[in-house]
Amino acid sequence: MKSRVVIVGAGFAGVEAAKALARSNSSRSNQIEVVLIDRNNYHTFIPMLYQVATAVIYPQQIAYPIRRMFRGQDAVRFFQAEVTGIDFEQRSVQTSEGLQIDYQYLILATGSQSQYLGVPGAEEYAFPMRTLNDAVGLRNHLLSCLEQAVKLNDLEARQRWLRFVIVGGGPTGVELAGSLVQLISSALKRDFPTLDRSDTQIILVQSGEGLFKGYPERLGTYTARWLRRQGVQVYLKTGVSRVTPTNVHLDSANMDSSDQGHQADPWVIPTQTVIWTAGVEGAIPDPKPSLETTKRQQILAQPTLQVLTQPGVYAVGDLANIEGQSMNGVAQEAIQQGQTAARNILRQIEGKPPQPFDYHNKGRLAILGRHAGVAEIGRFAFGGIVAWLLWLEVHWWYLPGLRNRFGVLGNWLKYYCFGEGVNRIILSVPALEISSPENKFNTLKNHLIS
Amino acid sequence: MKSRVVIVGAGFAGVEAAKALARSNSSRSNQIEVVLIDRNNYHTFIPMLYQVATAVIYPQQIAYPIRRMFRGQDAVRFFQAEVTGIDFEQRSVQTSEGLQIDYQYLILATGSQSQYLGVPGAEEYAFPMRTLNDAVGLRNHLLSCLEQAVKLNDLEARQRWLRFVIVGGGPTGVELAGSLVQLISSALKRDFPTLDRSDTQIILVQSGEGLFKGYPERLGTYTARWLRRQGVQVYLKTGVSRVTPTNVHLDSANMDSSDQGHQADPWVIPTQTVIWTAGVEGAIPDPKPSLETTKRQQILAQPTLQVLTQPGVYAVGDLANIEGQSMNGVAQEAIQQGQTAARNILRQIEGKPPQPFDYHNKGRLAILGRHAGVAEIGRFAFGGIVAWLLWLEVHWWYLPGLRNRFGVLGNWLKYYCFGEGVNRIILSVPALEISSPENKFNTLKNHLIS
Repeated sequence: MKSRVVIVGAGFAGVEAAKALARSNSSRSNQIEVVLIDRNNYHTFIPMLYQVATAVIYPQQIAYPIRRMFRGQDAVRFFQAEVTGIDFEQRSVQTSEGLQIDYQYLILATGSQSQYLGVPGAEEYAFPMRTLNDAVGLRNHLLSCLEQAVKLNDLEARQRWLRFVIVGGGPTGVELAGSLVQLISSALKRDFPTLDRSDTQIILVQSGEGLFKGYPERLGTYTARWLRRQGVQVYLKTGVSRVTPTNVHLDSANMDSSDQGHQADPWVIPTQTVIWTAGVEGAIPDPKPSLETTKRQQILAQPTLQVLTQPGVYAVGDLANIEGQSMNGVAQEAIQQGQTAARNILRQIEGKPPQPFDYHNKGRLAILGRHAGVAEIGRFAFGGIVAWLLWLEVHWWYLPGLRNRFGVLGNWLKYYCFGEGVNRIILSVPALEISSPENKFNTLKNHLIS
Repeated sequence: MKSRVVIVGAGFAGVEAAKALARSNSSRSNQIEVVLIDRNNYHTFIPMLYQVATAVIYPQQIAYPIRRMFRGQDAVRFFQAEVTGIDFEQRSVQTSEGLQIDYQYLILATGSQSQYLGVPGAEEYAFPMRTLNDAVGLRNHLLSCLEQAVKLNDLEARQRWLRFVIVGGGPTGVELAGSLVQLISSALKRDFPTLDRSDTQIILVQSGEGLFKGYPERLGTYTARWLRRQGVQVYLKTGVSRVTPTNVHLDSANMDSSDQGHQADPWVIPTQTVIWTAGVEGAIPDPKPSLETTKRQQILAQPTLQVLTQPGVYAVGDLANIEGQSMNGVAQEAIQQGQTAARNILRQIEGKPPQPFDYHNKGRLAILGRHAGVAEIGRFAFGGIVAWLLWLEVHWWYLPGLRNRFGVLGNWLKYYCFGEGVNRIILSVPALEISSPENKFNTLKNHLIS
């Protein structure tokens, strides 16, 4: 009898697990059947989202069709669906439209989502940066801010559209800030000659004492200095207390010495744009299954990545919190966890015990902007042009799709040589509503195997 | 004193008029100021919309940023705005957000929109094909139909998602039908091996006796034969009487002999996809100015393209109905009319009388699919591979943007050699809502000239 492995989520972890299982399948006389489920029909290359948001590259260049990934691999079936429930006793997954899929093994890999830390208005009015939709939506908004500003005669109203506040001093926030500087200066120079550069403002707000929490301290110091030289205002030890449609309220016990001169605490910054990169939590499928989770909504997993109470269920990637290990939420981690989960399932099928996950840290990279990046590799931590080149090379290498790679290479050459990314069009397509004509969809139960 | 020309709409006619005025400006010691207004920040290359809808090319490849078009041309200013009123007495244009712009000359070039001919449900449930948004929305829907069908066990329910009905046998309907055949067969072969080709159906419905009304009859005959050979069901002399979320109701007094065998009249076809290409009308800005219009909502213009009662106001492109001339609604017409309007305004500024529009018909082209097109050039009308090549060459030549051209060339090579277009991702970005913080926007009245 075939063993069916259901994988929920086609991010780095889920895709990697499916690939590993499919690879091993042919040597096992096709005993394994993989069902991969995702709400989108594409895999997103998350580390380059900020480049989509700032119009360096096109959205489809970091989106790769999942079906295309598994062409010719009959062991893997894909369904675009939303998971609506998991029944651990019956060992089955329910999805939107009444699809029901039984499993012998289950890999939960639904990743993470923005966490707004209880800040009033943040969820409603701040722009998140977790999905491709978010990134394109943000790009459209950023470009629209310029189109709005150019129509305004009143200086204060204009500045409100030209002031951009980024909350969160981790890699996403920093990369976005660096790239936004470039977008604004290029757009103003070339397309909005009547707008004044000095009316624009980019503010990066970080609650902690330095940028890049968790990285070596000097990388954060280097980054803050670099960003300030580019004209970004970096507010350290500063919290956000409220977001409204036209303002952000900041709060700081102890302002950083280099950014004196603003109003008393708490103070209000008029802006149309608050970008939220401050917190993430596990994106547990709704309704939440009865599993043990952490405060950050991550599912607790054993060192083998098995969920504590369910030996046939694995949690991997951003969704998982592995007993005793501190995770960084980087793609490498998710990829390696996906591989481990696949390997452990194969061991279980063979009657062998699963083995603990062993993270092989290849290092961490972040990009600041033109000719500047930071890197932490083994015991080395450095910033500058070498880290920048490394970032480009590594990300280019891992980007799925030959055509996307060459497209991105062309865009980068243009961007880093001439300072201009892709065409800045504002294209927002209304969200799709699939009207299900009847709810008497036959379930796929027992049908999938046939 | 400078003469300000306000152009509403940045389609073929509007853009061409702005370019012609900008060119002439330097030789006239900068006496002209052009203000171009469009609801989008990009110009859409409409003739290739159907290729976006069927995932042959990417949306941004036929969208070109308007500001980029007029870089370095200080005489042209662009505003992304919606026109909300025109005051002919005061000679001023109002836009969303209270912008008010005075003009000496006005060119109305807002194009056309879908007309649903009073068919109940058509506006609500049929997919239009007039804008880039429409095309991307339709692409997302077409791809989603396959993703939905693959989840269904019930044959009838599955076929409903795999049946596509195109209403209208003009160039848009025909081009879409030919391209859809290709999309479905390629997607099924490569990405949906479990779906059966024989469960899919493409139906083209045309009210008239033949396809390509207004073209020589034998082109229509050739086209119908070609489409049928590809498996498209072509229903001639067939009307649509109702569209519902899950059905389309057809009505035919006199069914075409080659498509016998379906149910009695009127009959109902279960489908999730009705694409509406049947009718267009002028897209007059709302609220409608008090101008004489035709039944199809086109503004009546004199042979000089001046609006009947307003010598300083021109109507061009799809929006205009020129006294005594029958128009085809093709890009060439709009381009030439834009040029004539610009030339006539320059003549008026010099105190000379405007001259009548003289259409130089370069011919018409439509594409059917791989290696087949139809052409009408002068007295020649022919179908086949030469017409197909001509279509590709002409459209490639006119496509704005060097990068877009090379991108499209690559896509076409891949598409016509290997039968596969671009990556089929379903990406729908929620429509942007610009929240205007206060309605006390200062108007730009009198400010623009300074």
